[in-house]
Amino acid sequence: VATTTGKRNGVSSRAKVLTIDTMNPTVKKVEYAVRGPIVQRAVELERELSQGVKKPFAEVIKANIGDAHAMGQQPITFFRQVLALCSYPELLNDSTFPEDAKSRARRILQSCGGNSLGSYSASQGIESVRQDVARYIERRDGGVPCAPDNIYLTTGASDGIVTMLKLLVCGEGATRTGVMISIPQYPLYSAALAELGAVQVNYYLNEEKCWSLDISELQRSVDEARTHCNPRALCIINPGNPTGQVQSRQCIEDVIRFAAKERLFLMADEVYQDNVYADGCQFHSFKKVLFEMGPEYSSTVELASFHSTSKCYMGECGFRGGYMEIINMDNEVKAQLTKLVSVRLCPPVPGQALMDLVVNPPQPGEPSYDNFIKERTATLSVLAEKAKLTEQVLNTVEGIRCNPVQGAMYSFPRISIPEKAVKEANGQQPDMFYCMRLLEETGICLVPGSGFGQKDGTYHFRMTILPPTDKLKILLDKVKEFHHKFTQKYS
Amino acid sequence: VATTTGKRNGVSSRAKVLTIDTMNPTVKKVEYAVRGPIVQRAVELERELSQGVKKPFAEVIKANIGDAHAMGQQPITFFRQVLALCSYPELLNDSTFPEDAKSRARRILQSCGGNSLGSYSASQGIESVRQDVARYIERRDGGVPCAPDNIYLTTGASDGIVTMLKLLVCGEGATRTGVMISIPQYPLYSAALAELGAVQVNYYLNEEKCWSLDISELQRSVDEARTHCNPRALCIINPGNPTGQVQSRQCIEDVIRFAAKERLFLMADEVYQDNVYADGCQFHSFKKVLFEMGPEYSSTVELASFHSTSKCYMGECGFRGGYMEIINMDNEVKAQLTKLVSVRLCPPVPGQALMDLVVNPPQPGEPSYDNFIKERTATLSVLAEKAKLTEQVLNTVEGIRCNPVQGAMYSFPRISIPEKAVKEANGQQPDMFYCMRLLEETGICLVPGSGFGQKDGTYHFRMTILPPTDKLKILLDKVKEFHHKFTQKYS
Repeated sequence: VATTTGKRNGVSSRAKVLTIDTMNPTVKKVEYAVRGPIVQRAVELERELSQGVKKPFAEVIKANIGDAHAMGQQPITFFRQVLALCSYPELLNDSTFPEDAKSRARRILQSCGGNSLGSYSASQGIESVRQDVARYIERRDGGVPCAPDNIYLTTGASDGIVTMLKLLVCGEGATRTGVMISIPQYPLYSAALAELGAVQVNYYLNEEKCWSLDISELQRSVDEARTHCNPRALCIINPGNPTGQVQSRQCIEDVIRFAAKERLFLMADEVYQDNVYADGCQFHSFKKVLFEMGPEYSSTVELASFHSTSKCYMGECGFRGGYMEIINMDNEVKAQLTKLVSVRLCPPVPGQALMDLVVNPPQPGEPSYDNFIKERTATLSVLAEKAKLTEQVLNTVEGIRCNPVQGAMYSFPRISIPEKAVKEANGQQPDMFYCMRLLEETGICLVPGSGFGQKDGTYHFRMTILPPTDKLKILLDKVKEFHHKFTQKYS
Repeated sequence: VATTTGKRNGVSSRAKVLTIDTMNPTVKKVEYAVRGPIVQRAVELERELSQGVKKPFAEVIKANIGDAHAMGQQPITFFRQVLALCSYPELLNDSTFPEDAKSRARRILQSCGGNSLGSYSASQGIESVRQDVARYIERRDGGVPCAPDNIYLTTGASDGIVTMLKLLVCGEGATRTGVMISIPQYPLYSAALAELGAVQVNYYLNEEKCWSLDISELQRSVDEARTHCNPRALCIINPGNPTGQVQSRQCIEDVIRFAAKERLFLMADEVYQDNVYADGCQFHSFKKVLFEMGPEYSSTVELASFHSTSKCYMGECGFRGGYMEIINMDNEVKAQLTKLVSVRLCPPVPGQALMDLVVNPPQPGEPSYDNFIKERTATLSVLAEKAKLTEQVLNTVEGIRCNPVQGAMYSFPRISIPEKAVKEANGQQPDMFYCMRLLEETGICLVPGSGFGQKDGTYHFRMTILPPTDKLKILLDKVKEFHHKFTQKYS
C-alpha cells in the first residue's frame, strides 16, 4: 500500500497522499454555481481594476448572490444595538441605548452560560430563543400551536437543510433515497445530495405559468424516480429561489396532499417569507396550511420548515443564524437528530441572539418600535420597487423574457442565445459563455441558469434585485445593451 | 415501495416516512459523550432543583465540557469592545472606547462587504483576517513562512476537522480509508468517522508515561489496520484532549517521520496551544517542527493544523471561530476544498472578527495593551493553579490515579471500580454507572472515560479544570468522598 515515486530521499519524491484521484469522489461531484467560476473571475477583475488595469468598465457590479448588506442595505438599528450590548455588557450602563434594547440584551444574556455570548449553548439552541421562535410561528400561523422542543436553531438555513437530508439518506442501488427538488433549484440542494450520495429527483417548475408548481409534474417525477430509487422527501422553496415566484395556498395544499399520498417527507425552505412584493400574492407557511387541512394531514405528514436571519428585511447573512421546525417527526429519529447536532456543539451564539430579535422585534409602545417599523418598511418597499423595475426593464429587451418577481430576491429571465453562440461556447454551457462575456465586457456578475438547472435547450441567468436602485438601473441598461450586441454578433 | 399501515383515511394511519429503521444508518452509529446521557440528566436535575425538588446537593456543578465562560471566566475586554464596535459602528463616535479598539474595528469593517458583519465573507474567510492569521503563525513558528492562501477560516475547529476528514474518505471494503486517532480521543473524531463511514484506527496513548505517544504503538496500529483498510491519515491532539499531556519536540519529530514513512496525511489539532502549564513543557507546533526537519519533510508531508477561538485564554466557544492551515496540499484537491466550503457560504463573520483579534491582539504601546496582558496572564495563571490543584487532590484519593495536567483543560484520571460495581452496572459501561451515581448523589457532572475510549478493563472520567477555584475545591472534595463511599459500598 505504501508506495513512493521518484528517488527516495529527494525533495518532492513522494506522491501526495491526497490527490484528485484518491480524494472523496462524492466531493468531486459537488457543484455550487453561486460561488463558481464566474464569481472567481469577478474577484480577479476587481483586483485588476484596483491595480489600474484598463477594462471596458469602471467597477464590477455583483448581482450573483443574495448578500443584501454587501449591496449597501443597512442593518436594522435595534438589532445591532442589542448585539453590541450583548457583546460588551458594559454598555448596559450607557444611557444613549434605548431601554428596550437593554432589556432584550439582558434577557438574552441571562439565557447564556455565565451570561456570555462566548459560552456554548445547548446543541438545539438557547431555550428562551426557541420559545420566542415558537411564539413567532404561532403568531405568523394564526395560532397554530408550536412547541419550542420542535425548534432547532441552526447555522443559517443551509445547515438545517443539510442536517435533515443527512437523516433521510439510506439504502443502496434501486433502494437508495431519492430527494425531489425543483428545477430550477438553489444549488445547495444538488450539492448536498451529491455529497450525501442521494439521488437527485428533478421536478420542473412551469416557466409559462410564472414558475408555478404542477402536481402532474410532481407525479411524473416521482413515478419515474420509483423505477430506480426510493423517493422519500420533497423539497419546496417558497418564495422561490432562483425563480422569485410565490406559491398559492391552493398549490401548497395540493403539494401536502401529494406528499401524504406518495409518502414523502416535506422540506419547506421558507427563508424568504417576508419577501413578497406582487399584488395578490401572500406568503402561506406549509405548517399553517397543513394544520388547516385537519388531523388526517396535520397529525401525519412529516414536515421540516427552515428560516434564517440572512434574507427578508434584515439580510444578516454573516451571522449565520437560522432555525428549523420539525413536525410529526418520529421520537426516536428526533433523539438521533439531537445527538447528531450535538457533535458540532452549537450554532453560533451571536446568530442565535439575532434570530431571537428577528422573531421578537420591538413591540408597539416600546421606544424602538417606530424606528424599527420605519426601517423595515423602507427596506421592503425599496425591494418591491426593484423587483418591479427589474421585471419591467428586462422585458423591454428583445430575446429576454422575465416572469414577475413576486417574491424572494431574484429574477430568473429566459434568454435567447443564437445558434452561433452556442457553437462558439464550444462545450461550455451556452449561458455560462454568455455570462462570462457579459462579465468581461460590462463588469456585471450574474450566475448562468445552468448552475440552477433548467429545461434542456432553454437558457437563463439569475440576477439578484439587491444592488442600490441607481446601480440596478445601470446594470439593467448594460444587460440590455450587451444582449443586443451579443445577439447581433452571433446572428 | 409506498406502504401504509392501519386504515387508509384515519388519523395516525400512516407509518412515518422517517423512522429509526429507515434513517441514515451511519448517523445512528454516531456517539458524542461530551453531551451524552450524563449531561442530559444533569440538565434535568437542574430543572428539578429550580422547581424545589429536594436533592442531596444544592447545585449541579458541570465539569463535562470545556466551556470557560459558562464557568465564570471573563472575556477579554479588548475583544468584546471591538466586537461591539463592529456590531454597531455608531459606537465609533463614542469617546469612551480606546483608539486601538476603534482602529481594529475599522479595519475589520473595511474588509466586510458593505462594511457590515452582516455580509457573507469569501468562503475561505475574510482576506485580511487570513493575512493576520498567517503573520501570527509566522511569529509563533519563529519565522517559518505562512501563505494566507493556505488559511481557511472555519466554524470552530470541529468544522475544519470534519471538512478535512471528508476530503480524505474513499474506497470500499479493504481499501476504505482508515484514520488513526489516539485512544483516549476527543469524540468529535469518532463521531465524524462514523458519519463518514471511514474506518477508525485506534492507537493507544501510554498512560504510564503521562499519556505520551509511542511510535512503536503507532506502528502496531497502522500495521494491523493495513490488513483490513487503507490508513491514510493520522490525527494528533496536542496539548491533549481529554488527557492533558503536552508532547515533546522529539515526539512530534518522530510522528512526522512516521507519517512520511507510512504515507499518512497529518492532522494536528492544536486548539490548546496557549494552554501549557507544567514546568519544562512547551507547545511546539507540527508546522514548525516539520520545517525544522528540512525540505525532505517540509516540502512533502501533508499537514492540516487546526485552531479556534474557543479555548486558550479567550474561551469564546459561542462565537464558533476557527481556522485551519493546510501544508503541501495538492493544488487540485485544494480547489476542491475551496469549492466544498463555498456550499456553506462562509463561517460566521463575528467569529472571523474574533479570530482576527486573537491572532492580532493589542501591541506594546497601544492603549489596550497593558490591560490585555493583565487579563490574559490572570486567566492563564488561574488555569495553571487549577491544573495543579486537580492533579494534587485527585492523587490523594485511594483508587484514583491522575497524571499531571500539563496542558489543555482536562484531567483524565484512572479510577478503580470494584468488581461488584462492574456487575451492578449490568451491561452499562462501569464508568458510566460510576459517573451517573456521582451525579445523582453529589450533583457533579463528569464524562465517563468510555466516551473517549480507554484500554479494556481500565476506567476513567474526564473532568475539566474550569470551575472557579472555590467550586473546584468543593467538586474535588465531593469526588473524593464519593469515591470512598462508592468503593466501600461495592467492596
